[in-house]
Amino acid sequence: MSDMKSLEDLFLHHLKDVYYAEKQIMKALPKVAKKADSAKLRKAFEDHLKETEGQVGRLEQVFDIFGQKAKGETCPAIKGIIEEGEEGIKDSKDADVRDAAMIADAQAVEHYEIARYGTLIAWAEQLGKHDAAKLLKETLDQEYAADRLLSKLAEGQLNKEAA
Amino acid sequence: MSDMKSLEDLFLHHLKDVYYAEKQIMKALPKVAKKADSAKLRKAFEDHLKETEGQVGRLEQVFDIFGQKAKGETCPAIKGIIEEGEEGIKDSKDADVRDAAMIADAQAVEHYEIARYGTLIAWAEQLGKHDAAKLLKETLDQEYAADRLLSKLAEGQLNKEAA
Repeated sequence: MSDMKSLEDLFLHHLKDVYYAEKQIMKALPKVAKKADSAKLRKAFEDHLKETEGQVGRLEQVFDIFGQKAKGETCPAIKGIIEEGEEGIKDSKDADVRDAAMIADAQAVEHYEIARYGTLIAWAEQLGKHDAAKLLKETLDQEYAADRLLSKLAEGQLNKEAA
Repeated sequence: MSDMKSLEDLFLHHLKDVYYAEKQIMKALPKVAKKADSAKLRKAFEDHLKETEGQVGRLEQVFDIFGQKAKGETCPAIKGIIEEGEEGIKDSKDADVRDAAMIADAQAVEHYEIARYGTLIAWAEQLGKHDAAKLLKETLDQEYAADRLLSKLAEGQLNKEAA
């Protein structure tokens, strides 16, 4: 990370961080989808992969608004969250338990993104970049919806099977 | 992590994970509070440290309900989130930018906890341990309140100074 002297520096650093995070999520989702036992859960992961591609495109538009080339920066947080998810898959020795573990870890990913997009939106507004804030808000709404869908899948069916 | 064959195994693994996370947060908060430029932000971190001590106590009660000794298990997610926060402090070369960075990273911590406590509550209910769920819900409510306070601090004052 380079030195940050202004809110714009901080914004751009976090934009690169979340760009890296979305790319890591794009790599992880197809692997995770394959491990899902529930067809509904598999579909949720596959659908979220398509959404994530759109989110990456929106981040590229935000870089453009700030006159910057889209670029990622290693994000230790998402690396840790994904690592924890991989361990959960590996150590779950029952299909229903594995589905429950995957939902929990996907919700940890969603909440990381909810925190980051929420911050980026506030900063974009502060910097007077309302068009950037609007793009980021579209993604934030998708992350909230993804989190709600995962809760619904968990509470409606999977936990009962795993118990 | 050991093998997980039932929802109770999964619950206990996540309980150890969040116990480890809270202990790491307890270590990080006094250091973070010292770096805060805004007196309000410093107070928020100090107050949250006291709350975190209570949350650790509540987790110990939950271990007890499940007939287990309280024990942490290394959580790569919180390690990554805290590492990212340390980098943000180090690379911020302006007091207001540093405060804004610290608020953002504290919100990433809060959202990690919101995801984990939300999951633990659903699983505790599923396992018929309503007293455990109630204890965990008290903590979840505190994490939501801490996140709202940080948003208020960020939007009301700090970002304007950093811009």
